Amino acid sequence: MSLARVHNFAISLDGFGTGEGQSRDDHFGHAGERLHEWMFATRWWHGTEPGGSGGVDDAFTRQFEPGIGAEIMGAGKFGHPGWHEDPDWTGAWGPNPPFHTPTFILTHHTRPSIEMEGGTTYHFLDTSPAEALATARKAADGRDVRIGGGPTVIRDFLAAGLIDHMHVAVVPILLGRGVRLWDNLEGLEKDFRIESVSSPSGVTHLTFTRA
Amino acid sequence: MSLARVHNFAISLDGFGTGEGQSRDDHFGHAGERLHEWMFATRWWHGTEPGGSGGVDDAFTRQFEPGIGAEIMGAGKFGHPGWHEDPDWTGAWGPNPPFHTPTFILTHHTRPSIEMEGGTTYHFLDTSPAEALATARKAADGRDVRIGGGPTVIRDFLAAGLIDHMHVAVVPILLGRGVRLWDNLEGLEKDFRIESVSSPSGVTHLTFTRA
Repeated sequence: MSLARVHNFAISLDGFGTGEGQSRDDHFGHAGERLHEWMFATRWWHGTEPGGSGGVDDAFTRQFEPGIGAEIMGAGKFGHPGWHEDPDWTGAWGPNPPFHTPTFILTHHTRPSIEMEGGTTYHFLDTSPAEALATARKAADGRDVRIGGGPTVIRDFLAAGLIDHMHVAVVPILLGRGVRLWDNLEGLEKDFRIESVSSPSGVTHLTFTRA
Repeated sequence: MSLARVHNFAISLDGFGTGEGQSRDDHFGHAGERLHEWMFATRWWHGTEPGGSGGVDDAFTRQFEPGIGAEIMGAGKFGHPGWHEDPDWTGAWGPNPPFHTPTFILTHHTRPSIEMEGGTTYHFLDTSPAEALATARKAADGRDVRIGGGPTVIRDFLAAGLIDHMHVAVVPILLGRGVRLWDNLEGLEKDFRIESVSSPSGVTHLTFTRA
């Protein structure tokens, strides 16, 4: 069965998945990269370079790719506000993005698909979460679909009951402003087995597994 | 030195310290007692009765009383909305409240002090957090002052830089609505060493120690 999975999605203690004031230079607004430093410190992030920690943070990050056959992301993850007015915009990850699968961008401003290096092809969809998931599943050819964020997209998929597995990393900072992950999700715990484990890095990993 | 300390303050994953619709019968609104079940399951809560777990949840709960010489709480913790119109209201904890010290209630509706059984005396103050803390410290006679909640009061004391030590228990439920603890506290991590530890009960304990 093809699952819809969230991995390595980081929020602040006060629940923000991205900061305020997103721009081309500041993909996460005033949060900068403070939500992701724990991830940069893992062996996984270092890849074939030496260094990085192999602890619980690393164990979680490594679940990002295996078994995934497609990604769905929101327009706000694909680029800064206004990217759709730039015909040359091809995402925030350079010529060889880290997705390596068909990648579906939910946007009201669709454009023709873009084939990147390394197996990533961007497709642009103006549909509901459920329709996007059906499309992505077909492209994933039996494998799972990663719901890549940002916070609004994950929240919409949760509200629609479409997420099967979710990994959220809670980072011990308070952003004060930005986009919240948890708005309007009262009673979510009824649908999931929720576990938490804290890491020596200070991050707490929450996992939601559909009950 | 007399510290200002927060203990056993429970919030939901989405950051609510109390639910919506507080009333005389529902002290925590629609949250009921779901924020406190982890505490009821400790040896500490069982007191001299048998039963309860002696793990990490218990270790944290037991720090509630030692070294404390006074408590400060908000009007919303002392009673349901409108308690001040009831001249016979003496708090939500019966004749022998669990504070056993001078206890200061921040309210715009002051009344004469009330001496309860077991060492608790309720005093009513219409002052700023800093003035209330000065008054409570005097009453505590060199011991620490517990900031008892609710969420608005703790947030006000944090914003004023008055908290020295804080223990928050994050419970894996989503309340969706109520009163948030974390609003408008951007950058709080700069003032504290923050640690987190997860418990087999599913609760994550956060501790803030002034740096």
